[in-house]
Amino acid sequence: MIKVAIDAMGGDFAPKEQIKGTIEALKNDKELFAVLCGDEELLKKELAAYTYDTSRVEIVHAPEVIGNDEIPTKAVRTKKDSSTVTAFRLLKEGKADAVVSSGATGAVLTAGVLTLGRIKGVSRPALCPRIPDFSGRGTLLCDCGANLECKSVNLVHFALMASAYAEAVYGWKNAKVGLLNNGTEDHKGDEMHREANELLKRTAGINYVGNVEGRDIMFGDVDVVVSDGYTGNIALKSIEGCGKAISGILKREFKKNLFAKIRALTVMDVIKSVKKSADYETMGGAVFLGLTKPVIKAHGNSKAFGFSVCIAQAAGAVRGGLTEKISALLEKNAENGESAAEEAGAAEESKA
Amino acid sequence: MIKVAIDAMGGDFAPKEQIKGTIEALKNDKELFAVLCGDEELLKKELAAYTYDTSRVEIVHAPEVIGNDEIPTKAVRTKKDSSTVTAFRLLKEGKADAVVSSGATGAVLTAGVLTLGRIKGVSRPALCPRIPDFSGRGTLLCDCGANLECKSVNLVHFALMASAYAEAVYGWKNAKVGLLNNGTEDHKGDEMHREANELLKRTAGINYVGNVEGRDIMFGDVDVVVSDGYTGNIALKSIEGCGKAISGILKREFKKNLFAKIRALTVMDVIKSVKKSADYETMGGAVFLGLTKPVIKAHGNSKAFGFSVCIAQAAGAVRGGLTEKISALLEKNAENGESAAEEAGAAEESKA
Repeated sequence: MIKVAIDAMGGDFAPKEQIKGTIEALKNDKELFAVLCGDEELLKKELAAYTYDTSRVEIVHAPEVIGNDEIPTKAVRTKKDSSTVTAFRLLKEGKADAVVSSGATGAVLTAGVLTLGRIKGVSRPALCPRIPDFSGRGTLLCDCGANLECKSVNLVHFALMASAYAEAVYGWKNAKVGLLNNGTEDHKGDEMHREANELLKRTAGINYVGNVEGRDIMFGDVDVVVSDGYTGNIALKSIEGCGKAISGILKREFKKNLFAKIRALTVMDVIKSVKKSADYETMGGAVFLGLTKPVIKAHGNSKAFGFSVCIAQAAGAVRGGLTEKISALLEKNAENGESAAEEAGAAEESKA
Repeated sequence: MIKVAIDAMGGDFAPKEQIKGTIEALKNDKELFAVLCGDEELLKKELAAYTYDTSRVEIVHAPEVIGNDEIPTKAVRTKKDSSTVTAFRLLKEGKADAVVSSGATGAVLTAGVLTLGRIKGVSRPALCPRIPDFSGRGTLLCDCGANLECKSVNLVHFALMASAYAEAVYGWKNAKVGLLNNGTEDHKGDEMHREANELLKRTAGINYVGNVEGRDIMFGDVDVVVSDGYTGNIALKSIEGCGKAISGILKREFKKNLFAKIRALTVMDVIKSVKKSADYETMGGAVFLGLTKPVIKAHGNSKAFGFSVCIAQAAGAVRGGLTEKISALLEKNAENGESAAEEAGAAEESKA
């Protein structure tokens, strides 16, 4: 049985969509056990609408909710009975194997670090979503916002963690890793990015292919794109806006007159298929890599389908031994005489 | 008569598409005079295919070409007879009013700065493309790659220059300006971005609305997005890749079987209209803001239509008094007691 602690109160459509998504996930995975964290009365009311295997659902009463506008560190420390903090506590106590939350990102990151702690050797945990791409497989982007300012050694860890994740959850062996930069040549980028590029070339255990550009995230030949959190965040949201704009234009053009509207109906299956190919909900949530247990951050506006994919992703991380694989890869890298990350760490320390 | 010096040899499809584009531009604008820089024999051969007003076309022989892989400063200094350097020389000598080039970006930027010099008060010239967006109007993104590492005062100048450009060329009065950041709140971003946000709030002569996110470039309520060149480059290329991926998926889905192919034909006009709305070629090239004369950098893979839009854009910059408007706005800002840019400049100097 794989126990996933679910923050049922976080997100724009909580708890309704979170409960519906949980029921879907339970149907799809017979080994799944859902630990729902949230207001018991409210959750019971929502659950009452469904027929499901009650022996695989548990409610842990957590009446408080952390809002998007709260200061994460303060909220996590003071709202011990919030659905978010409760989910992490259960994970910490071994009463669950993974957490899924569509709550406030800052609160999820803070609760994750404070409650679970980092895997040995990880300098900075990082957020890693899977971006839909032309191939249909998706591209992992790590980091996309947990670490605004990074040192080159952090990017090496992102590459190691995302490579381990690619194999553990998606079965991508020897995933191709690129460094997000303003050009593919070695001299591109500022000092930190040039240093990261050199370190990554010498990092054992990953399949580094060099610098990549923004366009390679959705149309490239790489599986993992490594970035500082600031740049990754800008890239992610720029892509999101572009997808939304094109989808909006498509809708507008197909609605501009009756003749277009009628013809839209005749190609609806094709349009739906295009939308599905570009839909980030099919890709799951962002995994928070580097913590001692698997944590999935679902999009704040997740609907049931997207949330159910995140739960399946969490179960996949447990089954695939995500955190163990990250530990092993970091250790292998550290053992290697050429260990780039260690080297950079030592260099940093000697500077201090 | 508006004389545009055209680098006819730069770009993936030069000189064929450059010549075709020039002929189109001449047809659309009776006041336009084209000064074609390139290999005379080659250009004459290309021109022979068209009927046009020969009194509005001049060829200046420039047999050398600067490749994409050459070191810009070296190429610009040594290849005096290249089409790119020749176009800038003519502009400098007053034999042309603007330059359009789809040549190597580095060479265009270097030739621009070395030959023309900066407008008084401009700390760093910047590249500013117009990104297609949902509204159809487009959003100006400044800088998108000329300045990798920026100080906050540079971003203030980008805002002033892009605002002047918005009004001079597109007639957007009081253009809304946003600062590209990883969130809209004032505390977002690193120290430089937080400082830029505060400076921009106090900058006279612009309509600053605060921080914006990557998704606001194509789906926001701003006319100008200001960014350091590194981040702007990542955003631009991420958007480019997203557009290409969605366009590719659309094509794939409409070609997946005979039934889909037949239906694709019935909605071809709608699809074309969508493509046109999202097509960067309709938006022209990136203007290189801050130089003493208007310079348009066309995309390296420009076809005739896109190149003709760039020529029209160059003529628009001359007609709209782009460089004069930038000068005036910078002066107005400097005169203002609250001048944020001056303040930052002084602070920087006192630190040094």
